[in-house]
Amino acid sequence: MKLEHLDTPAALIDVARMQKNIARMQGHMNTLGVAFRPHVKTTKCIDVVRAQIAAGARGITVSTLKEAEAFFAAGVTDILYAVSMAPGKLPRALALRRQGCDLKLVVDNPSAASALAGFGAQHGETFEVWIEVDTDGHRSGITPDQDTLLDVGRILHENGVRVGGVMTHAGSSYELDTPQALAALAEQERAGCVRAAQRLRDAGIPCPAVSVGSTPTALAAAQLDGVTEVRAGVYVLFDLVMHNVGVCALDDIALSVLATVIGHQPDKGWAILDAGWMALSRDRGTSKQAHDFGYGQPCLLNGTLLPGYVVSGANQEHGILSAIGQEANADADANANPDTNAGTHATASPRDDITQRFPLGMKLRILPNHACATGAQFPEYHAVTPDGDSVEWRRFHGW
Amino acid sequence: MKLEHLDTPAALIDVARMQKNIARMQGHMNTLGVAFRPHVKTTKCIDVVRAQIAAGARGITVSTLKEAEAFFAAGVTDILYAVSMAPGKLPRALALRRQGCDLKLVVDNPSAASALAGFGAQHGETFEVWIEVDTDGHRSGITPDQDTLLDVGRILHENGVRVGGVMTHAGSSYELDTPQALAALAEQERAGCVRAAQRLRDAGIPCPAVSVGSTPTALAAAQLDGVTEVRAGVYVLFDLVMHNVGVCALDDIALSVLATVIGHQPDKGWAILDAGWMALSRDRGTSKQAHDFGYGQPCLLNGTLLPGYVVSGANQEHGILSAIGQEANADADANANPDTNAGTHATASPRDDITQRFPLGMKLRILPNHACATGAQFPEYHAVTPDGDSVEWRRFHGW
Repeated sequence: MKLEHLDTPAALIDVARMQKNIARMQGHMNTLGVAFRPHVKTTKCIDVVRAQIAAGARGITVSTLKEAEAFFAAGVTDILYAVSMAPGKLPRALALRRQGCDLKLVVDNPSAASALAGFGAQHGETFEVWIEVDTDGHRSGITPDQDTLLDVGRILHENGVRVGGVMTHAGSSYELDTPQALAALAEQERAGCVRAAQRLRDAGIPCPAVSVGSTPTALAAAQLDGVTEVRAGVYVLFDLVMHNVGVCALDDIALSVLATVIGHQPDKGWAILDAGWMALSRDRGTSKQAHDFGYGQPCLLNGTLLPGYVVSGANQEHGILSAIGQEANADADANANPDTNAGTHATASPRDDITQRFPLGMKLRILPNHACATGAQFPEYHAVTPDGDSVEWRRFHGW
Repeated sequence: MKLEHLDTPAALIDVARMQKNIARMQGHMNTLGVAFRPHVKTTKCIDVVRAQIAAGARGITVSTLKEAEAFFAAGVTDILYAVSMAPGKLPRALALRRQGCDLKLVVDNPSAASALAGFGAQHGETFEVWIEVDTDGHRSGITPDQDTLLDVGRILHENGVRVGGVMTHAGSSYELDTPQALAALAEQERAGCVRAAQRLRDAGIPCPAVSVGSTPTALAAAQLDGVTEVRAGVYVLFDLVMHNVGVCALDDIALSVLATVIGHQPDKGWAILDAGWMALSRDRGTSKQAHDFGYGQPCLLNGTLLPGYVVSGANQEHGILSAIGQEANADADANANPDTNAGTHATASPRDDITQRFPLGMKLRILPNHACATGAQFPEYHAVTPDGDSVEWRRFHGW
């Protein structure tokens, strides 16, 4: 279907940009001599993952067992479930392995390791487990030098579980914005994970896989000695947060939300869109970065950027597009400070041309803060080819 | 299914609390002598809306045509689509009316009114349109004293469109937190909408319906002279933002996210949950209110509040639960300020009891910032009865 005929709001993937992003990451991994295991939580879309695999990806990373089930049903067998395993989820994991899925689980603590080993013994199943390593204090995992690392390794190894490797995610890379800082964190992530693997091996525990990654560190890494594979997710579409981190240009961003102008507040310089936070998501990831893009960066229907304009506010099904300097309070729906809000209204000078510049019915594309969050608001993407035609690509929802 | 057997994360509705919230709002409307038209965008769930109608609601309000189509298919015919009509959506609206749906549309500008009148004439359809009135400068609509109000009324009335009424939404009520301020805004909303209706009638344009509402103003209104109906949505479940606004107690909140403890960072005083922002949503509506609840307020499985604890950070599928004073940076995933983050880590004193207090596998219920946003992350609710049993209530997704 042609773009101009799609109902709005709609989530668009620019296929040419997506393929360029896939080729860039896979090429970098090939140069570094490591395997690449894309994180499919970003798109939860079989069509996208097929393109990643066609480009050379080996296996996938998932964030939920529903993703594992759906991608296994679609023919992917090598799956890393990269969230520390809750004992209550073991029956679902067992069912996948019994069906022939090469599902790898993750733990980062002795309790989970014991529960997993006990469950495996009870059901006669040799699970494969990777141990999560904390290389940046960001979230979960065991730091490379903690005794707990070897404790967990031994619990698994001595109780019938195959220790398949170590994995880490330097998620704090999202907070950086210089090539030097990203390269330094990539090296920290690499070195910490390799060290954890070496400690396990030195203790007689096998550790074949050494898996690292986040989109910024994957792209910034100059060498990955000792690493066997890299994981990254958002690189496939990119977004405004990644642009601010410095790892993509605005015209690399392959995801946008198609929206229609449904009204105006000319005295305030606002055009009202039918894409609110339900479509754009509540993610305001750029709010604390050097360039705050509000709820998104507007572009023309053909993708041409509209510098000087921003989606400055959002209610559930309304977005407010305004010129920079005439912004609505970006959090107006939930919790704006009335004083600030009143001040904004009082000081904004009228922009009588907003109605002419963005007439009723005009369609725009909005680049989002965070591709993972915005995609999740939609049951499907519309994959757009260079000739402006589109096909529907379904995505999953829920757990 | 019993709560303890549900896979996590899961969205729970406490049915007893929901019924209490429905009875409270409907009782208040009955006392004020006005009809009540619930906004179903909060839950997009037929089971919830049946309970609202059973309690006395007359018609529903929707925020998307998909909601209109789904609820019409479920037997609801009196539907107000409360977002200014984009010309491109008129064919879908026409299809609904041709099937017998009493769908009312909304416009707030002459261009949309002309497009709608022209489309109706072209297709021989008498659309019913309500004119959106701006009573608080919050978003869209025409202020009661603008000439545009009568222009729009005349365009519709003189071109074969039935002007069914006026409607307004004082969305800025979400920014208030005292009974006095809410009562004053409720009166401002009422008076402005009644005045707009009177101006239309004085100009010879019929205006039978006068529709106002937001959850805070609906509950705060002391009299609604001249108003025919009220709309409100989030009251049915409530949330932490509404608690901070002052219109519900914490134990009125009927929506929670069931989560499991999947790990710990004892040195930081963190328990890691399997409910991240994909489950809780990215909505941080309380971040600028008097009490910031982070990504949510933890409760025991039985609903008992856990004061002193908060979900202080969230990644896509990880939540960080910590004691107040040991919070993670709530926006850690996307854009935390590294300096602040480092400071938080450095000053937090170890809490060795976090592992004992919240052991691996423990299930918790998290009260969310914003019920509309959190619900949308799930394909279904689990409606929980007082005996701890649950049934699945489906909800819609997309447009």
